[in-house]
Amino acid sequence: MAVYTEISSDELAAFVAGYDIGTVLSVKGIAEGVENSNFLLVTEKGPFILTLYEKRVDADDLPFFLGLMEHLAAKGIPCPLPVRDRAGSALGTVAGRPAAIITFLSGVWIRRPRREHCAALGAALAGLHLAAADFPLSRPNALSVAGWRKLFEASAPRADEVVPGLAAEIAGELAAIEKAWPASLPSGVIHADLFPDNVFFLGDRLSGLIDFYFACNDMLAYDIAVCINSWCFEPDDSLNVTKAKALLDGYVRVRPLGADEIAALPLLCRGSALRFLLTRLHDWLNVPPGALVVPKNPREYLNKLRFHQRARSAAAYGLSA
Amino acid sequence: MAVYTEISSDELAAFVAGYDIGTVLSVKGIAEGVENSNFLLVTEKGPFILTLYEKRVDADDLPFFLGLMEHLAAKGIPCPLPVRDRAGSALGTVAGRPAAIITFLSGVWIRRPRREHCAALGAALAGLHLAAADFPLSRPNALSVAGWRKLFEASAPRADEVVPGLAAEIAGELAAIEKAWPASLPSGVIHADLFPDNVFFLGDRLSGLIDFYFACNDMLAYDIAVCINSWCFEPDDSLNVTKAKALLDGYVRVRPLGADEIAALPLLCRGSALRFLLTRLHDWLNVPPGALVVPKNPREYLNKLRFHQRARSAAAYGLSA
Repeated sequence: MAVYTEISSDELAAFVAGYDIGTVLSVKGIAEGVENSNFLLVTEKGPFILTLYEKRVDADDLPFFLGLMEHLAAKGIPCPLPVRDRAGSALGTVAGRPAAIITFLSGVWIRRPRREHCAALGAALAGLHLAAADFPLSRPNALSVAGWRKLFEASAPRADEVVPGLAAEIAGELAAIEKAWPASLPSGVIHADLFPDNVFFLGDRLSGLIDFYFACNDMLAYDIAVCINSWCFEPDDSLNVTKAKALLDGYVRVRPLGADEIAALPLLCRGSALRFLLTRLHDWLNVPPGALVVPKNPREYLNKLRFHQRARSAAAYGLSA
Repeated sequence: MAVYTEISSDELAAFVAGYDIGTVLSVKGIAEGVENSNFLLVTEKGPFILTLYEKRVDADDLPFFLGLMEHLAAKGIPCPLPVRDRAGSALGTVAGRPAAIITFLSGVWIRRPRREHCAALGAALAGLHLAAADFPLSRPNALSVAGWRKLFEASAPRADEVVPGLAAEIAGELAAIEKAWPASLPSGVIHADLFPDNVFFLGDRLSGLIDFYFACNDMLAYDIAVCINSWCFEPDDSLNVTKAKALLDGYVRVRPLGADEIAALPLLCRGSALRFLLTRLHDWLNVPPGALVVPKNPREYLNKLRFHQRARSAAAYGLSA
């Protein structure tokens, strides 16, 4: 959770009066999400999520994020639907910050995903990619290969404080990935951050995909790589091939992968592991005073990166080429 | 918010199955409360609060806290009602911790209380005192005068880091309060921590009193002093006499104060200010690594303490003796 914006009850009541969702019965800050302030808002019409966009999110990107959710929800993807106010706008202002009210999704996120969760995730991810294909807006991925060097240079001088030799290891890996990074794989809108805490289940049924605030245009198979990294490794940072295979099988049943995408999978997984290694390294070295967030240890993603370096083909993830 | 206990979805489902509240639709950690892990739990039967008691709460005290809420709720006090499981117990175990499910109360807490909120608070506090009069359990107040010296001694060596001269100022004040502290005022069960974030309103109607985890037996008027300190001061730490008068008038309309209680009010306010000064000083000097809590500045309660030292009688709070 990021630094929390406080909202006075009068201000909240005035803001909610602009929507056709009844009066406020309750509002509670949610201890999840690190980019924004999220509140569970209960009104006479039921529960909603109120999000205040803090400064880590660029306000110019909000029409993309909110429009994407509306586009996907209209196509039956189980994602939050931004609620429009009486003037027809999905984006308002409260406590001096851009703010939106989105629908509440039932479900809980799975702390220890099993094979069947990975299979459901793969299918949902492919469904998201297909549903977003005709979304008219676009947003470059600031956290793709073109952005990694700058991120690395900011942390490089102190990287060895975390793991001895880390700066040199990342430098070598970054150079190799920059050189080999694919340029012509099928692209479109990706979620880019579909970690387990952004996916809800009711029993074994996938009931929600949330947190579209990293969504952007990039290679679709890169989104799979993010999911393999965040769903298919065990607590000792070893890959569970059964889970990876389930995820990939679930995906291709909805959207078949091209031979080029399959061949690129180890490289995309390396890139995705590097991306999270770099952002976690940055956050680890730059905890602001008074932060409410305990940064995640970057070492987990270093171990994942090393696994992918050794993967010769998509067979390492259970997929036959 | 304290360090959060994670609950796996399987474990949560198994725990909730022991209650007659339907299956889990959602669970979200709430970014409020510092002693326990609190979750907003939505089931087929509606919203509930799930609390996991962390180590700052003594498990032996839980029957007192839960029994008190049940006792008060049965008398119509708007407080959470502990839900009993199928075996009739209000106290269970989840994720290795004592845990309880309590009912959800509508309402929002008031960031900037006005006179009418203070009046409603006074009346509700008196109602709580009357309703608790025949509660059979008791619990000493570990954070009353007998506990303050030990608390002070732990912080004294470093107190001057916060405010120069603070150790000497507190030592003098503590000695004076220990000497003058009343022994024979009307006593009973008090809330002891009824700050604005523990009181919900729907519009101007008080709709809920929560967080009974400091409740104990002590002088009833001491509870009023806690509320004067937490509700009736302005952001510049000056007393708003109009609000204090409204709080006291609201209280005495439900439970008249004796002349001895009225006379003791400045002293009780000093003691209450000292109590929060001491605990905030302790927390300020002892932030654990990885803490998710930004400690509150103790200076606020030093300023309040100094105000009460100058108060000659309850007239300083708007009450005619």
